[in-house]
Amino acid sequence: MSAPPTSAAGVLARCAELDQLSAHPQHLERLHLTAEHAAANRLTAGWMELAGLRTWQDAAGNQWGRREGAAPGQPALVLGSHLDTVPDAGSFDGMLGVVMAVAVAERLRGADLPFALEVVGFSDEEGARFGKALLGSQAVAGTWDPAWWDLRDDDGVTLHRAFGDFGLDPDRVGDAARRPAELVGYLEAHIEQGPYLEAADRSLGYVTAIAGARRFRLSVLGEARHAGGTPYPRRRDALVGASEAVVAVERLARAGDAIATVGRLEVLPGAVNVIPGRADLTLDLRAATDEERDAMWDVMRAEIAGICDRRGLGLEVVETHRAPAAPCAGWLQQAVAHGIRATDDLGAAEPMGLWSRAGHDAMALAAVTDVGMLFLRCADGISHSPDEDVREVDVARGLDAFEAAVRSVAAAVRSRP
Amino acid sequence: MSAPPTSAAGVLARCAELDQLSAHPQHLERLHLTAEHAAANRLTAGWMELAGLRTWQDAAGNQWGRREGAAPGQPALVLGSHLDTVPDAGSFDGMLGVVMAVAVAERLRGADLPFALEVVGFSDEEGARFGKALLGSQAVAGTWDPAWWDLRDDDGVTLHRAFGDFGLDPDRVGDAARRPAELVGYLEAHIEQGPYLEAADRSLGYVTAIAGARRFRLSVLGEARHAGGTPYPRRRDALVGASEAVVAVERLARAGDAIATVGRLEVLPGAVNVIPGRADLTLDLRAATDEERDAMWDVMRAEIAGICDRRGLGLEVVETHRAPAAPCAGWLQQAVAHGIRATDDLGAAEPMGLWSRAGHDAMALAAVTDVGMLFLRCADGISHSPDEDVREVDVARGLDAFEAAVRSVAAAVRSRP
Repeated sequence: MSAPPTSAAGVLARCAELDQLSAHPQHLERLHLTAEHAAANRLTAGWMELAGLRTWQDAAGNQWGRREGAAPGQPALVLGSHLDTVPDAGSFDGMLGVVMAVAVAERLRGADLPFALEVVGFSDEEGARFGKALLGSQAVAGTWDPAWWDLRDDDGVTLHRAFGDFGLDPDRVGDAARRPAELVGYLEAHIEQGPYLEAADRSLGYVTAIAGARRFRLSVLGEARHAGGTPYPRRRDALVGASEAVVAVERLARAGDAIATVGRLEVLPGAVNVIPGRADLTLDLRAATDEERDAMWDVMRAEIAGICDRRGLGLEVVETHRAPAAPCAGWLQQAVAHGIRATDDLGAAEPMGLWSRAGHDAMALAAVTDVGMLFLRCADGISHSPDEDVREVDVARGLDAFEAAVRSVAAAVRSRP
Repeated sequence: MSAPPTSAAGVLARCAELDQLSAHPQHLERLHLTAEHAAANRLTAGWMELAGLRTWQDAAGNQWGRREGAAPGQPALVLGSHLDTVPDAGSFDGMLGVVMAVAVAERLRGADLPFALEVVGFSDEEGARFGKALLGSQAVAGTWDPAWWDLRDDDGVTLHRAFGDFGLDPDRVGDAARRPAELVGYLEAHIEQGPYLEAADRSLGYVTAIAGARRFRLSVLGEARHAGGTPYPRRRDALVGASEAVVAVERLARAGDAIATVGRLEVLPGAVNVIPGRADLTLDLRAATDEERDAMWDVMRAEIAGICDRRGLGLEVVETHRAPAAPCAGWLQQAVAHGIRATDDLGAAEPMGLWSRAGHDAMALAAVTDVGMLFLRCADGISHSPDEDVREVDVARGLDAFEAAVRSVAAAVRSRP
């Protein structure tokens, strides 16, 4: 007999089902606007319907379900997260939040709520296909930028073309946008993707703010020449310059209490016996506040420019992403904290608040409605890796807390003058 | 009226024709056992036939032409170079030597030679497709290693499969091997791919020895984790470790008078917001002698292992190529030097001898016959780049020298007791 979908075991079983929808048999990769994405939307829509929700896929490929509240057409409290993954992903980043949202909607079937309840599985949070994160949630927030249509994936396919291939009409992406008046707020459950809850021996935490990343594409430009025949004084090796930059980025970030990651580095022409003429790398930069982050970038940029100057290398920098830090709304922080108090996680302690180093769909939604987040402890802080793991007990407490948080939101809405 | 194929202008025109046989319309890339390779063999065979040679493609995809000497079936003096290129290549590395060899064979039509004259266009010198260099010339030298059949290109195609796709029978690769008794020697003309002739204001030089490269594939193994959520003490970033290794390789090579190049570096999983879990890089290492080169590798390996240890990273090393330094035969050095003296390059000066930092097909042929090489000045030492260039006057002198070198070999053979 299978576990009920409202239980922690049921939630984990559904996460394992989503694992099967991958571009690769050996590891999980589900990118934006792929066949796997379409299949994940269909599977999730089926679960939503089992939970009594009316379902639709919106104009940006996000999967939605909705159940009306006390009266039809009321503004909605939205619960959700994302269904896309990074390459070689774990099983919980995003998916756990979507599956928990469905489970909580099922638990609240028949509850008397003063708002409609909606569940969403966003189409793109990671940005792993087009290099631009939060495409799904930004469409919903109404912050879509038409310049994104020209973004290309590794195969040269534009976002515009991918929309068409997926059966979406790019001209109608605006239909995915929600108006503030339609929304009560947005709540998202997510694994912490960091070590702080585990270090504090807590299952759950509420999020105070989400740090905003800036991302850059840097191109170091040298000269491709023969590996054997070119003596050092005549070399302008783009990879050695880029490597010095990678090492400097780590040193500066550590010294300045920021987090900086070079996740991609590509060398051209990329032959064993040719000096690299070009190296393209990405930089993802985060800090506790936007001011600290921006000051750190100024220092890093100057340092990298100096490395390139000394080596006779060119440098091109393009900013590909910039998200401001998004504070969680005070009343939704309180609702999530109230939800955590309703579990057996705490003993006499108070719920733990923490800021998110990782970006989340809630950042984009903050442009259109109040947002709140519930974090679940994950094993050793590991994420974006097949070793990503959560404990069943934490999922059980998370479901209880998430359900209680929704009830707390309902109480808050009812008490409004 | 087009330039005669025996002139420098005619040779440069044929190099430009070979440029058209590329996998890419915008830049030159002609890899081993591709459609472009087959087309280059056909075009070259046509030129060989115009020069009065009988042609065949051998069991390893090398293109040959032969004209008998004074008596049929005599041993052959082989002139040649390679027809494959690196990605985004220049127009002269390899091709110039093949086209010059055809031109010299044409010039020597009707000459009374005490050997057969053969011209060869080798199928693979660069190793750009399968990561293993000199595949064509090693088949001819009889030093083929069956382990190479499992080498794979970037699309996962094995060398064995590529042979079949090209219409070759892998079981018959041994048929390409030549016996020492069939050969008088091997002469190769090639651009210097270095700055030494230009610095000395010489068109031409003779090669004393070819330094042997060692090549390695290094894999730095870390842990893929979330870029935002993972604080520095928990990071095991494979790319930062690999970058330190790249910088150390340059520092050590410069200090030790070696030449070392990291030409490829690939990051996995390669997403903007994921800490690299793995970095695979290549190392190409050369020095004036095998002893210096091997001592340098020991130092580099220890340094890289230390970097990985300090960072909690794994390290795997595979040697993919090791060629011993190949000395050019004294009598063929003299023949080439004699050929240079027959040109107007020198005034009263003696021909310049130099050792080759780059590998050449002659290295492989040295296992089966005596070898000699003629270097031509190239612009600013640039090679493996679209900016590769030679002056027409240097090609004219090179043709005169190469022809005179063959006549000098003929005189030496005739004078044998």
